[in-house]
Amino acid sequence: MEFPTLSAAEVTARLAARRAEKPNNYFAFYSSWIGGITTDPAAMVLPMDDHMVHRGHGVFDTATLRDGKLCRLHAHLDRLLRSAAAARLSSPLPLSREEMVAAIRATCGASGQRDASVRYWLSAGPGDFSFSPAGCHDAAGVFSVVVFGGFPMAAGGIAEVTVPAAVVPHKPPLLAGCKSNNYLLNVLTHLAARDGGGTFGIGVDERGYITEGAVCNASFVTAAGVLLTAPFGNILQGCTLSRALEVAVPQLIAEGLLKAAEQRPITLEEAKAGSVEVFLTGGDTHVMPVVRWDGAPVGDGEVGAVTARLTQMLERDVADNFDCVVDYG
Amino acid sequence: MEFPTLSAAEVTARLAARRAEKPNNYFAFYSSWIGGITTDPAAMVLPMDDHMVHRGHGVFDTATLRDGKLCRLHAHLDRLLRSAAAARLSSPLPLSREEMVAAIRATCGASGQRDASVRYWLSAGPGDFSFSPAGCHDAAGVFSVVVFGGFPMAAGGIAEVTVPAAVVPHKPPLLAGCKSNNYLLNVLTHLAARDGGGTFGIGVDERGYITEGAVCNASFVTAAGVLLTAPFGNILQGCTLSRALEVAVPQLIAEGLLKAAEQRPITLEEAKAGSVEVFLTGGDTHVMPVVRWDGAPVGDGEVGAVTARLTQMLERDVADNFDCVVDYG
Repeated sequence: MEFPTLSAAEVTARLAARRAEKPNNYFAFYSSWIGGITTDPAAMVLPMDDHMVHRGHGVFDTATLRDGKLCRLHAHLDRLLRSAAAARLSSPLPLSREEMVAAIRATCGASGQRDASVRYWLSAGPGDFSFSPAGCHDAAGVFSVVVFGGFPMAAGGIAEVTVPAAVVPHKPPLLAGCKSNNYLLNVLTHLAARDGGGTFGIGVDERGYITEGAVCNASFVTAAGVLLTAPFGNILQGCTLSRALEVAVPQLIAEGLLKAAEQRPITLEEAKAGSVEVFLTGGDTHVMPVVRWDGAPVGDGEVGAVTARLTQMLERDVADNFDCVVDYG
Repeated sequence: MEFPTLSAAEVTARLAARRAEKPNNYFAFYSSWIGGITTDPAAMVLPMDDHMVHRGHGVFDTATLRDGKLCRLHAHLDRLLRSAAAARLSSPLPLSREEMVAAIRATCGASGQRDASVRYWLSAGPGDFSFSPAGCHDAAGVFSVVVFGGFPMAAGGIAEVTVPAAVVPHKPPLLAGCKSNNYLLNVLTHLAARDGGGTFGIGVDERGYITEGAVCNASFVTAAGVLLTAPFGNILQGCTLSRALEVAVPQLIAEGLLKAAEQRPITLEEAKAGSVEVFLTGGDTHVMPVVRWDGAPVGDGEVGAVTARLTQMLERDVADNFDCVVDYG
């Protein structure tokens, strides 16, 4: 094995060569560290000593670019700033909120894309390799944005499996409620789910209560027409579920598809025995119907009426309500 | 605010310009992603889509380069591989263990340094921005190494403060025992300690038991000469404390400075009431004497005899026992 010593230009060339090996759908990247945007995937890098890279001292969120309009941007920015405060990354911020919006819009514009995912991070920034952010270069940290192609959602229903705390523990509330890049337990939840033929997993804490999926909230519809969801105290407050509870559930009740919605602790036993529909939500519009759970059909094993109608409503909501229009210059 | 669109070359130039603003002591960087070593700090970068950067799917460890010799390399590599297995990053590995040793030695050699810290990471590598590593480019992941100047240790004793679980919760065992880059709670423990005039903090779990400092183990010496340390089950198994228990404690007992050592759950009350010496350990040779704890002196408020002698022993141990010699070519 050889270990050649490379100049910075050679490193850049090798980064580009590695990128060229495989297609990717990264359209644009902005970082306040470099003060600009690049559309070259080879240059979408963070310094190794960014406190987010080596110490998990970064938070993120993801908005939706739909038909050239940014949807749910402010809801996700609100949560980003709550996460930043919990991670002590917000005093001061590297950019004001208005500047963050401007940076996000400019990055979307530079991407040329009209439909994409828009993810943004706040980190303590490069500094030294200490556990302390005290040596970080910019006391204010770094704001980064990437515009990338989303992931295709499975058509129809999916199979899921329970991931108990004995297999992957649930995050403590401070970590669960702060959308940081400390996602190892989320990744392990997904991998444990995949082992059993699932994708996101349905987490259960050590006391037997439903928590969340790897990157989504879980909802349950009872035979009596009650939508059950777990309280946000110990899990991440999903923007998609929050929006569903706010705008879609009242409409589902008005249409007679639901009787009521309750957000309260749910045991695994109750969820398993009482659900005629189960679905997972995330990514503003993604509603994943769970039609098999731990090998058994949920309800009649087909996508249920509440799940199907909610999917339509969230799609419609995103199309009708946008926060700003991107300028493609 | 302007958002210029930059070429890859312009990004590289800006990364270099940012580096030039402030001195750093990064001597060499290797990454299996680029297949080589660079000594240019501006080129010490990871792709934004590396699963370690955005999902915390990476593990690390740090060895000591002392007088041109790598000390405690294998103990830290053992732990790295245990962490990798816990994070499901080890099947397969990007480099064999022998190749990792070769990469570390080559990076140390290229650094030209004879005394430094040597940190290495295993990550799932670049792929896409999914929570799943399934799309990662190299199924085997990426191995990275950085050789950097360490941090000066405080001379004499330090003040520390208790960080209770109500302020910063303790990691669940799977996360606590796996040295991943999911260090947000460690960072917050440090910041909470700093708020109270400490540095590392002395963590206490929700049941009132001592856990660990932000990046170190805590040890307590009773008036009866018993060294008390917490069990490794719920905290990271410190390489420094492990080595101290293995080689130094028997000698401290033989010399009459200690009567015994007990590794068992310790309540905060017991530690506070019963300790004549408190010290923190980490980084192979660092023994930080805690002479004030929550504003009150520990013992007589001076560095104790056990702490002082242990410091000498660990320094001697590192100087006498090395794993391999670096070839500086």
